[in-house]
Amino acid sequence: MRLVSFQGTASGAIEVGVLADDESVVSLHRALPTGLLAAHEGMPDVIARWPRLQPHVQTLLGQAPHVRLSEVHLLAPVPRPPKLLAIGLNYLDHVNEKIVGDQGHEGRALPEHQLWFTKLGHAINGPYDDIVLPKVSERTDYEAELVAVIGQRCKHVPRERAHEVVFGYCVGNDVSVRDWQKRTSQWTLGKSFDTHAPFGPWLTTADELGGDPHALDLRCWVNGELRQQSNTSLMIHDVWAQIALLSQAMTLEPGDVIYTGTCSGVGAAFDPPKFLRAGDVVRVEIDKLGAIEARCVDEA
Amino acid sequence: MRLVSFQGTASGAIEVGVLADDESVVSLHRALPTGLLAAHEGMPDVIARWPRLQPHVQTLLGQAPHVRLSEVHLLAPVPRPPKLLAIGLNYLDHVNEKIVGDQGHEGRALPEHQLWFTKLGHAINGPYDDIVLPKVSERTDYEAELVAVIGQRCKHVPRERAHEVVFGYCVGNDVSVRDWQKRTSQWTLGKSFDTHAPFGPWLTTADELGGDPHALDLRCWVNGELRQQSNTSLMIHDVWAQIALLSQAMTLEPGDVIYTGTCSGVGAAFDPPKFLRAGDVVRVEIDKLGAIEARCVDEA
Repeated sequence: MRLVSFQGTASGAIEVGVLADDESVVSLHRALPTGLLAAHEGMPDVIARWPRLQPHVQTLLGQAPHVRLSEVHLLAPVPRPPKLLAIGLNYLDHVNEKIVGDQGHEGRALPEHQLWFTKLGHAINGPYDDIVLPKVSERTDYEAELVAVIGQRCKHVPRERAHEVVFGYCVGNDVSVRDWQKRTSQWTLGKSFDTHAPFGPWLTTADELGGDPHALDLRCWVNGELRQQSNTSLMIHDVWAQIALLSQAMTLEPGDVIYTGTCSGVGAAFDPPKFLRAGDVVRVEIDKLGAIEARCVDEA
Repeated sequence: MRLVSFQGTASGAIEVGVLADDESVVSLHRALPTGLLAAHEGMPDVIARWPRLQPHVQTLLGQAPHVRLSEVHLLAPVPRPPKLLAIGLNYLDHVNEKIVGDQGHEGRALPEHQLWFTKLGHAINGPYDDIVLPKVSERTDYEAELVAVIGQRCKHVPRERAHEVVFGYCVGNDVSVRDWQKRTSQWTLGKSFDTHAPFGPWLTTADELGGDPHALDLRCWVNGELRQQSNTSLMIHDVWAQIALLSQAMTLEPGDVIYTGTCSGVGAAFDPPKFLRAGDVVRVEIDKLGAIEARCVDEA
């Protein structure tokens, strides 16, 4: 199944829906009894309650009124995740590409351990919403990534059982403001500008991939020019290893979002660099998960 | 005023309250009409709605039933903040102290720019709750810090107006797992272990400090031994400069939590180092804001 978060009424209320086909959605908020899903609840609640909801959803898809996808505003599938984590330097070709501004060496050292950072709050953005290029930088860049969404509360998950705790997958863009990312040792601010964590367009449940997300082509185009192209089989630390490590430190919970790393071809690796400019259209696509596409606009 | 988040009934429902005196609290969830504060809403909603709620609260303090503080479980005042940010190396004596494991130099370089990182999710912990020492490390450390909580949605806040967007202040402990913090370039995991972001005991509104948090003594004791002692006047980047910079990158919103940096005396700076051990009691106190105190326990 494919789940979405959307705004479909004038009130702007956020609803969770399930795609009935490529063009229409059934709103769980409208179709389920309030006892099963309250108005203020969102995707993390749906995920946590999924085993109980799923049989109802199956029935609803045949009975409940459909809303046309073109008439709603799709949000990131988890607009307010409990937490969002992102791994850096997780494809060898990206580790080895030379980034403008990293003087003095070719490429970067392969980290001995998984390298984790975060993207915060208002960075989260809808799959087709504009990416805002900040006033304070000329170096906004794209990074195509597979995004995993956690399905259950867990800690100390062994690698071989990590697949059990993933709810599903999305397409993401880890938009990065390179000068702010690099001007201190910590990347946090450069990764967390408003609108810089778009993902979607929907949350595809893990069973749709046969449970394994490690054989998917991913691609990124800017204005139709193919900039990034790889396959999720080339991750250095696969999704299972990521979950195993993260869950040693922290409890993971339904709706947690994990950006799983980007491959080579980011704008900063071109000479001269190809940073994003107003009017650019960035498209990220992953096999079986769909595509997200954003127009870049200057900050007002 | 002093606001708290607490669990006071068998249901475990989270309530927001206002201290009536040092020993009792009025529950806003029980005393206010549902139209003003719904059961599922929490501290960020109270903060966002504070100008409208405050006159009611004033009346309630004289009329509503009081709950004894000793009979409730205090949580962090904002148990689920929209985001939590923390600044590193923000007191000169801490920048200059030599940290065990940072071989080859005395102290660290003063960063040219504000250095920001995050603490995530289940790291947030109540003011008197146990700190869990993880299985996977022997190097858990304390850091006493002033914590600021944002009061309104804002972006691009000029330094001279930053005081207008702060709702209040708390006492915090930026518990840090040193080996995980340092084993990659990014500190994220080492800062985000479960229970490692205790703060409280209450959220003191900014007006109680005359609007200025930059003249407060802060102290940290472990088992009654004074380990850290400084004054918030010694921050390199004060709270206003922090808000000005953060809001260039991201929209801040009601309930966002900012850890404002620690002073010298962390456990890793002793030779031999004094990391936390099961049974240790860590107390952090700040003038006018109270004290938080935690017992350390080994992860089960």
